[in-house]
Amino acid sequence: MHEIDKRLEELGIVLEVGPKPIANYVSVQKAGDIWFFSGSGPFKDGKPAIFGRLGDDMTVEEGYAAARLTGINMLAIMKREFDGDWDKLEQVVKVNGYVRCTDDFGQQPAVINGVSDLFVEVLGDKGRHARTAMGTNALPMDMPMEVEWIIKVK
Amino acid sequence: MHEIDKRLEELGIVLEVGPKPIANYVSVQKAGDIWFFSGSGPFKDGKPAIFGRLGDDMTVEEGYAAARLTGINMLAIMKREFDGDWDKLEQVVKVNGYVRCTDDFGQQPAVINGVSDLFVEVLGDKGRHARTAMGTNALPMDMPMEVEWIIKVK
Amino acid sequence: MHEIDKRLEELGIVLEVGPKPIANYVSVQKAGDIWFFSGSGPFKDGKPAIFGRLGDDMTVEEGYAAARLTGINMLAIMKREFDGDWDKLEQVVKVNGYVRCTDDFGQQPAVINGVSDLFVEVLGDKGRHARTAMGTNALPMDMPMEVEWIIKVK
Repeated sequence: MHEIDKRLEELGIVLEVGPKPIANYVSVQKAGDIWFFSGSGPFKDGKPAIFGRLGDDMTVEEGYAAARLTGINMLAIMKREFDGDWDKLEQVVKVNGYVRCTDDFGQQPAVINGVSDLFVEVLGDKGRHARTAMGTNALPMDMPMEVEWIIKVK
Repeated sequence: MHEIDKRLEELGIVLEVGPKPIANYVSVQKAGDIWFFSGSGPFKDGKPAIFGRLGDDMTVEEGYAAARLTGINMLAIMKREFDGDWDKLEQVVKVNGYVRCTDDFGQQPAVINGVSDLFVEVLGDKGRHARTAMGTNALPMDMPMEVEWIIKVK
Repeated sequence: MHEIDKRLEELGIVLEVGPKPIANYVSVQKAGDIWFFSGSGPFKDGKPAIFGRLGDDMTVEEGYAAARLTGINMLAIMKREFDGDWDKLEQVVKVNGYVRCTDDFGQQPAVINGVSDLFVEVLGDKGRHARTAMGTNALPMDMPMEVEWIIKVK
Protein backbone atom coordinates (compact mmCIF):
# COMPACT_ATOMS: atom_id res chain seq x y z
CA MET A 1 0.00 0.00 0.00
CA HIS A 2 1.40 3.39 -1.01
CA GLU A 3 2.39 5.78 1.78
CA ILE A 4 -0.09 8.37 0.45
CA ASP A 5 -2.97 5.88 0.52
CA LYS A 6 -1.94 4.97 4.09
CA ARG A 7 -2.11 8.62 5.14
CA LEU A 8 -5.53 8.94 3.51
CA GLU A 9 -6.70 5.88 5.45
CA GLU A 10 -5.30 7.25 8.74
CA LEU A 11 -7.17 10.50 8.10
CA GLY A 12 -10.35 8.55 7.33
CA ILE A 13 -10.52 9.96 3.80
CA VAL A 14 -12.11 7.80 1.11
CA LEU A 15 -11.51 9.02 -2.44
CA GLU A 16 -14.48 8.75 -4.79
CA VAL A 17 -13.78 8.38 -8.47
CA GLY A 18 -12.93 11.98 -9.35
CA PRO A 19 -15.82 13.95 -10.88
CA LYS A 20 -15.77 14.46 -14.65
CA PRO A 21 -15.98 17.86 -16.39
CA ILE A 22 -19.48 19.28 -16.81
CA ALA A 23 -18.92 20.79 -20.25
CA ASN A 24 -16.79 20.53 -23.41
CA TYR A 25 -13.37 20.30 -21.76
CA VAL A 26 -11.11 17.79 -19.99
CA SER A 27 -10.05 17.35 -16.34
CA VAL A 28 -6.37 17.74 -17.10
CA GLN A 29 -4.24 18.64 -20.06
CA LYS A 30 -0.50 18.04 -20.23
CA ALA A 31 2.33 20.29 -21.39
CA GLY A 32 5.09 17.73 -21.18
CA ASP A 33 5.61 16.95 -17.50
CA ILE A 34 3.63 19.99 -16.33
CA TRP A 35 -0.05 19.16 -15.95
CA PHE A 36 -2.79 21.78 -15.80
CA PHE A 37 -6.05 20.80 -14.06
CA SER A 38 -9.50 22.29 -14.60
CA GLY A 39 -11.25 24.20 -11.83
CA SER A 40 -12.89 21.91 -9.26
CA GLY A 41 -15.20 22.41 -6.29
CA PRO A 42 -16.88 20.76 -3.30
CA PHE A 43 -18.35 17.77 -5.13
CA LYS A 44 -19.95 14.63 -3.67
CA ASP A 45 -21.06 11.73 -5.89
CA GLY A 46 -19.92 13.64 -8.96
CA LYS A 47 -21.86 16.85 -8.37
CA PRO A 48 -21.64 20.10 -6.36
CA ALA A 49 -22.69 19.40 -2.77
CA ILE A 50 -22.07 22.68 -0.95
CA PHE A 51 -23.42 26.07 -1.95
CA GLY A 52 -23.09 29.53 -0.46
CA ARG A 53 -21.28 32.82 -0.16
CA LEU A 54 -18.64 33.64 2.42
CA GLY A 55 -19.48 36.69 4.51
CA ASP A 56 -23.16 36.02 3.89
CA ASP A 57 -24.55 32.51 4.58
CA MET A 58 -21.25 30.68 5.30
CA THR A 59 -18.71 31.09 8.08
CA VAL A 60 -14.95 30.85 7.54
CA GLU A 61 -15.07 27.43 9.29
CA GLU A 62 -17.75 26.20 6.88
CA GLY A 63 -15.71 27.60 3.99
CA TYR A 64 -12.61 25.79 5.23
CA ALA A 65 -14.56 22.50 5.38
CA ALA A 66 -15.88 23.02 1.84
CA ALA A 67 -12.35 23.76 0.64
CA ARG A 68 -11.15 20.55 2.32
CA LEU A 69 -13.85 18.61 0.44
CA THR A 70 -12.69 20.34 -2.75
CA GLY A 71 -9.15 19.19 -1.96
CA ILE A 72 -10.37 15.61 -1.50
CA ASN A 73 -11.89 15.80 -5.00
CA MET A 74 -8.62 17.17 -6.35
CA LEU A 75 -6.75 14.22 -4.82
CA ALA A 76 -9.31 11.83 -6.35
CA ILE A 77 -8.89 13.43 -9.78
CA MET A 78 -5.09 13.22 -9.54
CA LYS A 79 -5.16 9.58 -8.45
CA ARG A 80 -7.45 8.74 -11.38
CA GLU A 81 -5.18 10.57 -13.85
CA PHE A 82 -2.14 8.76 -12.39
CA ASP A 83 -3.93 5.41 -12.93
CA GLY A 84 -3.57 4.95 -9.19
CA ASP A 85 0.21 5.41 -9.15
CA TRP A 86 1.03 8.23 -6.71
CA ASP A 87 4.73 7.93 -7.60
CA LYS A 88 3.98 9.91 -10.76
CA LEU A 89 3.56 13.05 -8.63
CA GLU A 90 6.77 15.04 -8.32
CA GLN A 91 5.34 18.28 -6.93
CA VAL A 92 2.10 20.22 -6.59
CA VAL A 93 3.32 23.49 -8.09
CA LYS A 94 0.44 25.97 -7.93
CA VAL A 95 -3.03 26.20 -6.41
CA ASN A 96 -5.45 29.01 -7.29
CA GLY A 97 -8.50 29.26 -5.05
CA TYR A 98 -11.41 31.54 -5.95
CA VAL A 99 -13.82 32.19 -3.08
CA ARG A 100 -17.41 33.32 -3.70
CA CYS A 101 -17.95 36.09 -1.15
CA THR A 102 -19.40 39.44 -0.25
CA ASP A 103 -17.56 42.63 -1.25
CA ASP A 104 -16.14 43.21 2.23
CA PHE A 105 -14.92 39.66 2.91
CA GLY A 106 -11.11 39.49 3.20
CA GLN A 107 -10.33 36.05 4.65
CA GLN A 108 -9.93 34.08 1.42
CA PRO A 109 -6.55 32.69 2.61
CA ALA A 110 -8.15 31.17 5.73
CA VAL A 111 -10.75 29.46 3.53
CA ILE A 112 -8.35 28.10 0.91
CA ASN A 113 -6.15 26.75 3.72
CA GLY A 114 -8.68 23.90 3.64
CA VAL A 115 -7.01 22.74 0.44
CA SER A 116 -3.43 23.70 1.36
CA ASP A 117 -3.48 22.05 4.80
CA LEU A 118 -4.93 18.84 3.32
CA PHE A 119 -2.32 18.69 0.56
CA VAL A 120 0.54 19.08 3.04
CA GLU A 121 -1.04 16.55 5.46
CA VAL A 122 -1.54 13.92 2.76
CA LEU A 123 1.27 14.59 0.29
CA GLY A 124 3.97 16.03 2.56
CA ASP A 125 6.53 18.29 0.87
CA LYS A 126 5.23 17.20 -2.54
CA GLY A 127 2.00 18.95 -1.60
CA ARG A 128 3.63 22.30 -0.72
CA HIS A 129 2.62 24.79 -3.41
CA ALA A 130 2.68 28.42 -4.50
CA ARG A 131 -0.82 29.84 -4.19
CA THR A 132 -3.24 32.61 -5.02
CA ALA A 133 -6.38 32.96 -2.89
CA MET A 134 -8.82 35.64 -3.97
CA GLY A 135 -12.48 36.59 -3.94
CA THR A 136 -15.12 36.61 -6.64
CA ASN A 137 -18.76 37.66 -6.71
CA ALA A 138 -20.03 34.58 -8.58
CA LEU A 139 -19.10 30.98 -9.37
CA PRO A 140 -20.62 28.14 -11.40
CA MET A 141 -23.73 26.68 -9.76
CA ASP A 142 -23.26 28.98 -6.73
CA MET A 143 -20.40 26.88 -5.36
CA PRO A 144 -18.55 28.64 -2.51
CA MET A 145 -15.16 28.09 -4.16
CA GLU A 146 -13.49 26.90 -7.31
CA VAL A 147 -9.90 25.68 -7.23
CA GLU A 148 -7.54 24.97 -10.14
CA TRP A 149 -4.01 23.61 -9.89
CA ILE A 150 -0.77 22.74 -11.65
CA ILE A 151 1.56 19.84 -10.89
CA LYS A 152 4.86 18.49 -12.10
CA VAL A 153 5.03 14.75 -12.78
CA LYS A 154 8.00 12.43 -13.07
CA MET B 1 -4.46 24.83 -47.77
CA HIS B 2 -4.09 23.70 -44.17
CA GLU B 3 -6.85 21.51 -42.73
CA ILE B 4 -7.50 24.10 -39.99
CA ASP B 5 -7.92 26.92 -42.53
CA LYS B 6 -10.29 24.63 -44.46
CA ARG B 7 -12.40 24.06 -41.37
CA LEU B 8 -12.48 27.83 -40.72
CA GLU B 9 -13.66 28.38 -44.31
CA GLU B 10 -16.36 25.68 -43.96
CA LEU B 11 -17.58 27.38 -40.79
CA GLY B 12 -17.59 30.76 -42.55
CA ILE B 13 -15.05 32.17 -40.11
CA VAL B 14 -12.69 34.88 -41.38
CA LEU B 15 -9.78 35.64 -39.06
CA GLU B 16 -8.86 39.30 -38.72
CA VAL B 17 -5.29 40.15 -37.86
CA GLY B 18 -5.30 39.45 -34.12
CA PRO B 19 -5.79 42.54 -31.93
CA LYS B 20 -2.67 43.96 -30.23
CA PRO B 21 -2.31 44.56 -26.47
CA ILE B 22 -3.79 47.80 -25.17
CA ALA B 23 -1.05 48.51 -22.61
CA ASN B 24 2.59 47.85 -21.75
CA TYR B 25 2.61 44.07 -22.30
CA VAL B 26 2.76 41.51 -25.13
CA SER B 27 0.18 39.14 -26.65
CA VAL B 28 2.19 36.05 -25.85
CA GLN B 29 5.32 35.19 -23.93
CA LYS B 30 7.15 31.89 -24.24
CA ALA B 31 8.54 29.57 -21.60
CA GLY B 32 10.30 27.17 -23.94
CA ASP B 33 7.57 25.30 -25.82
CA ILE B 34 4.83 26.41 -23.43
CA TRP B 35 3.29 29.69 -24.55
CA PHE B 36 1.24 31.93 -22.25
CA PHE B 37 -1.26 34.29 -23.91
CA SER B 38 -2.64 37.55 -22.51
CA GLY B 39 -6.32 37.90 -21.67
CA SER B 40 -8.47 38.57 -24.74
CA GLY B 41 -12.11 39.44 -25.34
CA PRO B 42 -14.86 39.93 -27.95
CA PHE B 43 -12.92 42.25 -30.27
CA LYS B 44 -13.84 43.39 -33.80
CA ASP B 45 -11.47 45.53 -35.90
CA GLY B 46 -8.97 45.56 -33.05
CA LYS B 47 -11.25 46.84 -30.30
CA PRO B 48 -13.90 45.57 -27.87
CA ALA B 49 -17.21 45.18 -29.73
CA ILE B 50 -19.55 43.62 -27.16
CA PHE B 51 -20.29 44.99 -23.69
CA GLY B 52 -22.53 43.79 -20.89
CA ARG B 53 -23.09 41.77 -17.77
CA LEU B 54 -24.51 38.24 -17.68
CA GLY B 55 -27.59 37.95 -15.50
CA ASP B 56 -28.33 41.62 -16.13
CA ASP B 57 -28.38 42.90 -19.73
CA MET B 58 -27.10 39.76 -21.52
CA THR B 59 -28.62 36.29 -21.90
CA VAL B 60 -26.57 33.09 -21.75
CA GLU B 61 -27.05 32.77 -25.53
CA GLU B 62 -25.67 36.28 -26.10
CA GLY B 63 -22.80 35.46 -23.75
CA TYR B 64 -22.06 32.26 -25.68
CA ALA B 65 -21.95 34.26 -28.95
CA ALA B 66 -19.60 36.84 -27.40
CA ALA B 67 -17.38 34.00 -26.12
CA ARG B 68 -17.32 32.50 -29.64
CA LEU B 69 -16.20 35.88 -31.02
CA THR B 70 -13.52 35.93 -28.31
CA GLY B 71 -12.43 32.47 -29.45
CA ILE B 72 -12.19 33.70 -33.05
CA ASN B 73 -9.85 36.45 -31.84
CA MET B 74 -7.80 33.88 -29.93
CA LEU B 75 -7.44 31.80 -33.12
CA ALA B 76 -6.41 34.95 -35.04
CA ILE B 77 -3.79 35.80 -32.41
CA MET B 78 -2.40 32.25 -32.48
CA LYS B 79 -2.24 32.18 -36.29
CA ARG B 80 -0.36 35.50 -36.26
CA GLU B 81 2.09 34.24 -33.63
CA PHE B 82 2.62 31.02 -35.65
CA ASP B 83 3.42 33.16 -38.73
CA GLY B 84 0.47 31.38 -40.31
CA ASP B 85 1.82 27.88 -39.69
CA TRP B 86 -0.83 25.92 -37.78
CA ASP B 87 1.49 22.92 -37.57
CA LYS B 88 3.31 24.68 -34.73
CA LEU B 89 0.33 23.97 -32.46
CA GLU B 90 0.73 20.76 -30.50
CA GLN B 91 -2.06 21.28 -27.95
CA VAL B 92 -4.25 23.93 -26.39
CA VAL B 93 -3.50 23.15 -22.74
CA LYS B 94 -5.57 25.53 -20.61
CA VAL B 95 -8.33 28.08 -21.07
CA ASN B 96 -9.41 30.42 -18.27
CA GLY B 97 -12.64 32.30 -18.89
CA TYR B 98 -13.74 35.14 -16.60
CA VAL B 99 -17.38 36.14 -17.04
CA ARG B 100 -18.64 39.57 -15.96
CA CYS B 101 -21.91 38.84 -14.19
CA THR B 102 -24.34 39.53 -11.38
CA ASP B 103 -23.74 37.98 -7.94
CA ASP B 104 -26.36 35.25 -8.42
CA PHE B 105 -25.33 34.16 -11.94
CA GLY B 106 -24.01 30.59 -11.98
CA GLN B 107 -23.86 29.57 -15.66
CA GLN B 108 -20.31 30.65 -16.48
CA PRO B 109 -19.54 27.20 -17.98
CA ALA B 110 -22.40 27.54 -20.51
CA VAL B 111 -21.02 30.93 -21.56
CA ILE B 112 -17.37 29.88 -21.89
CA ASN B 113 -18.48 26.86 -23.95
CA GLY B 114 -18.54 29.44 -26.75
CA VAL B 115 -14.74 29.28 -26.74
CA SER B 116 -14.41 25.57 -25.95
CA ASP B 117 -16.87 24.38 -28.60
CA LEU B 118 -15.19 26.56 -31.24
CA PHE B 119 -11.71 25.27 -30.37
CA VAL B 120 -12.82 21.63 -30.64
CA GLU B 121 -14.74 22.33 -33.88
CA VAL B 122 -11.79 24.06 -35.53
CA LEU B 123 -8.74 22.41 -33.96
CA GLY B 124 -10.08 18.93 -33.17
CA ASP B 125 -8.30 17.09 -30.36
CA LYS B 126 -5.55 19.71 -30.36
CA GLY B 127 -8.19 22.16 -29.19
CA ARG B 128 -9.34 20.06 -26.21
CA HIS B 129 -8.21 21.85 -23.05
CA ALA B 130 -8.38 21.93 -19.29
CA ARG B 131 -10.49 24.89 -18.21
CA THR B 132 -11.60 27.20 -15.46
CA ALA B 133 -14.81 29.21 -15.96
CA MET B 134 -15.68 31.65 -13.22
CA GLY B 135 -17.48 34.91 -12.53
CA THR B 136 -16.23 38.39 -11.79
CA ASN B 137 -17.94 41.66 -10.98
CA ALA B 138 -15.88 43.81 -13.35
CA LEU B 139 -13.71 43.56 -16.46
CA PRO B 140 -11.68 45.98 -18.58
CA MET B 141 -13.86 48.30 -20.67
CA ASP B 142 -17.00 46.48 -19.43
CA MET B 143 -16.39 43.49 -21.70
CA PRO B 144 -18.65 40.52 -20.83
CA MET B 145 -15.70 38.13 -20.66
CA GLU B 146 -11.95 37.95 -20.68
CA VAL B 147 -10.20 34.72 -21.67
CA GLU B 148 -6.53 33.77 -21.29
CA TRP B 149 -4.91 30.56 -22.48
CA ILE B 150 -1.82 28.37 -22.55
CA ILE B 151 -0.64 26.17 -25.42
CA LYS B 152 2.14 23.73 -26.14
CA VAL B 153 3.95 24.14 -29.44
CA LYS B 154 6.12 21.72 -31.38
CA MET C 1 27.12 45.85 -9.21
CA HIS C 2 24.53 44.18 -11.42
CA GLU C 3 22.88 46.32 -14.11
CA ILE C 4 19.45 45.61 -12.57
CA ASP C 5 20.59 46.78 -9.12
CA LYS C 6 22.01 49.91 -10.78
CA ARG C 7 18.67 50.66 -12.42
CA LEU C 8 16.91 50.16 -9.08
CA GLU C 9 19.35 52.61 -7.49
CA GLU C 10 18.84 55.18 -10.26
CA LEU C 11 15.08 54.89 -9.74
CA GLY C 12 15.55 55.31 -5.98
CA ILE C 13 14.00 51.90 -5.28
CA VAL C 14 15.20 50.03 -2.21
CA LEU C 15 14.12 46.38 -2.07
CA GLU C 16 13.05 45.11 1.32
CA VAL C 17 13.48 41.44 2.05
CA GLY C 18 10.47 40.04 0.18
CA PRO C 19 7.44 39.34 2.38
CA LYS C 20 6.78 35.72 3.36
CA PRO C 21 3.49 33.87 2.74
CA ILE C 22 0.74 34.45 5.30
CA ALA C 23 -0.57 30.86 5.33
CA ASN C 24 0.37 27.25 4.62
CA TYR C 25 2.03 27.76 1.22
CA VAL C 26 5.31 28.92 -0.29
CA SER C 27 6.35 32.09 -2.20
CA VAL C 28 7.43 30.18 -5.28
CA GLN C 29 7.28 26.63 -6.54
CA LYS C 30 9.33 25.35 -9.45
CA ALA C 31 8.32 23.20 -12.42
CA GLY C 32 11.80 22.75 -13.85
CA ASP C 33 12.92 26.14 -15.15
CA ILE C 34 9.40 27.61 -15.02
CA TRP C 35 8.74 29.18 -11.64
CA PHE C 36 5.23 29.96 -10.36
CA PHE C 37 4.92 32.72 -7.74
CA SER C 38 2.14 33.16 -5.17
CA GLY C 39 -0.16 36.17 -5.30
CA SER C 40 1.42 39.29 -3.79
CA GLY C 41 0.20 42.79 -2.97
CA PRO C 42 1.20 46.28 -1.83
CA PHE C 43 3.24 45.25 1.21
CA LYS C 44 5.55 47.39 3.37
CA ASP C 45 7.64 45.88 6.18
CA GLY C 46 6.18 42.47 5.42
CA LYS C 47 2.50 43.36 5.65
CA PRO C 48 -0.27 44.93 3.53
CA ALA C 49 0.15 48.72 3.57
CA ILE C 50 -2.50 49.97 1.16
CA PHE C 51 -6.22 49.17 1.30
CA GLY C 52 -9.14 50.21 -0.83
CA ARG C 53 -11.42 49.65 -3.79
CA LEU C 54 -10.97 51.19 -7.21
CA GLY C 55 -14.00 53.18 -8.37
CA ASP C 56 -14.89 53.80 -4.71
CA ASP C 57 -12.21 55.18 -2.36
CA MET C 58 -9.17 54.96 -4.70
CA THR C 59 -8.37 56.79 -7.95
CA VAL C 60 -6.68 55.12 -10.91
CA GLU C 61 -3.51 57.09 -10.03
CA GLU C 62 -3.59 55.75 -6.45
CA GLY C 63 -4.20 52.26 -7.83
CA TYR C 64 -1.24 52.60 -10.20
CA ALA C 65 0.99 53.64 -7.27
CA ALA C 66 -0.20 50.66 -5.20
CA ALA C 67 0.47 48.35 -8.16
CA ARG C 68 3.97 49.83 -8.46
CA LEU C 69 4.58 49.06 -4.77
CA THR C 70 3.29 45.53 -5.43
CA GLY C 71 5.80 45.27 -8.28
CA ILE C 72 8.61 46.37 -5.96
CA ASN C 73 7.63 43.53 -3.62
CA MET C 74 7.61 41.12 -6.55
CA LEU C 75 11.15 42.21 -7.47
CA ALA C 76 12.24 41.76 -3.84
CA ILE C 77 10.75 38.26 -3.74
CA MET C 78 12.48 37.31 -7.00
CA LYS C 79 15.84 38.67 -5.85
CA ARG C 80 15.54 36.69 -2.61
CA GLU C 81 14.63 33.49 -4.51
CA PHE C 82 17.59 34.06 -6.88
CA ASP C 83 19.89 34.38 -3.84
CA GLY C 84 20.64 37.84 -5.16
CA ASP C 85 21.74 36.66 -8.61
CA TRP C 86 19.64 38.50 -11.22
CA ASP C 87 21.33 36.53 -14.01
CA LYS C 88 19.06 33.60 -13.12
CA LEU C 89 16.14 35.48 -14.69
CA GLU C 90 15.62 34.61 -18.33
CA GLN C 91 12.15 36.12 -18.81
CA VAL C 92 9.11 37.28 -16.92
CA VAL C 93 6.52 35.21 -18.77
CA LYS C 94 3.10 36.06 -17.32
CA VAL C 95 1.58 38.56 -14.90
CA ASN C 96 -1.99 38.26 -13.64
CA GLY C 97 -3.32 41.32 -11.83
CA TYR C 98 -6.62 41.19 -9.93
CA VAL C 99 -8.02 44.60 -9.03
CA ARG C 100 -10.52 45.06 -6.21
CA CYS C 101 -13.14 47.41 -7.64
CA THR C 102 -16.75 48.45 -8.01
CA ASP C 103 -18.98 46.68 -10.53
CA ASP C 104 -18.75 49.48 -13.10
CA PHE C 105 -14.97 50.01 -12.97
CA GLY C 106 -13.29 49.10 -16.26
CA GLN C 107 -9.75 50.52 -16.03
CA GLN C 108 -7.96 47.50 -14.57
CA PRO C 109 -5.27 47.67 -17.31
CA ALA C 110 -4.36 51.26 -16.34
CA VAL C 111 -3.95 50.13 -12.71
CA ILE C 112 -1.88 47.02 -13.41
CA ASN C 113 0.40 49.09 -15.66
CA GLY C 114 1.98 50.05 -12.33
CA VAL C 115 3.54 46.57 -12.29
CA SER C 116 4.13 46.25 -16.04
CA ASP C 117 5.81 49.65 -16.44
CA LEU C 118 8.08 48.97 -13.46
CA PHE C 119 9.11 45.56 -14.77
CA VAL C 120 10.04 46.97 -18.19
CA GLU C 121 11.84 49.97 -16.59
CA VAL C 122 13.90 47.78 -14.27
CA LEU C 123 14.29 44.50 -16.16
CA GLY C 124 14.17 45.71 -19.78
CA ASP C 125 13.04 43.11 -22.34
CA LYS C 126 13.33 40.38 -19.69
CA GLY C 127 10.47 42.14 -17.90
CA ARG C 128 8.12 42.20 -20.90
CA HIS C 129 5.30 39.76 -20.16
CA ALA C 130 1.95 38.42 -21.30
CA ARG C 131 -0.73 39.69 -18.94
CA THR C 132 -4.27 39.43 -17.69
CA ALA C 133 -5.75 42.39 -15.81
CA MET C 134 -9.23 41.91 -14.40
CA GLY C 135 -11.56 43.01 -11.65
CA THR C 136 -12.77 41.28 -8.52
CA ASN C 137 -15.20 42.26 -5.78
CA ALA C 138 -13.00 41.15 -2.87
CA LEU C 139 -9.37 40.41 -1.99
CA PRO C 140 -7.48 39.19 1.08
CA MET C 141 -7.29 41.82 3.82
CA ASP C 142 -9.04 44.35 1.54
CA MET C 143 -5.91 44.93 -0.55
CA PRO C 144 -6.64 46.91 -3.75
CA MET C 145 -4.85 44.34 -5.90
CA GLU C 146 -3.28 40.93 -5.87
CA VAL C 147 -0.72 39.97 -8.51
CA GLU C 148 0.72 36.54 -9.33
CA TRP C 149 3.39 35.80 -11.92
CA ILE C 150 5.38 33.18 -13.80
CA ILE C 151 8.99 33.40 -14.91
CA LYS C 152 11.50 31.34 -16.83
CA VAL C 153 14.94 30.95 -15.29
CA LYS C 154 18.26 29.94 -16.84
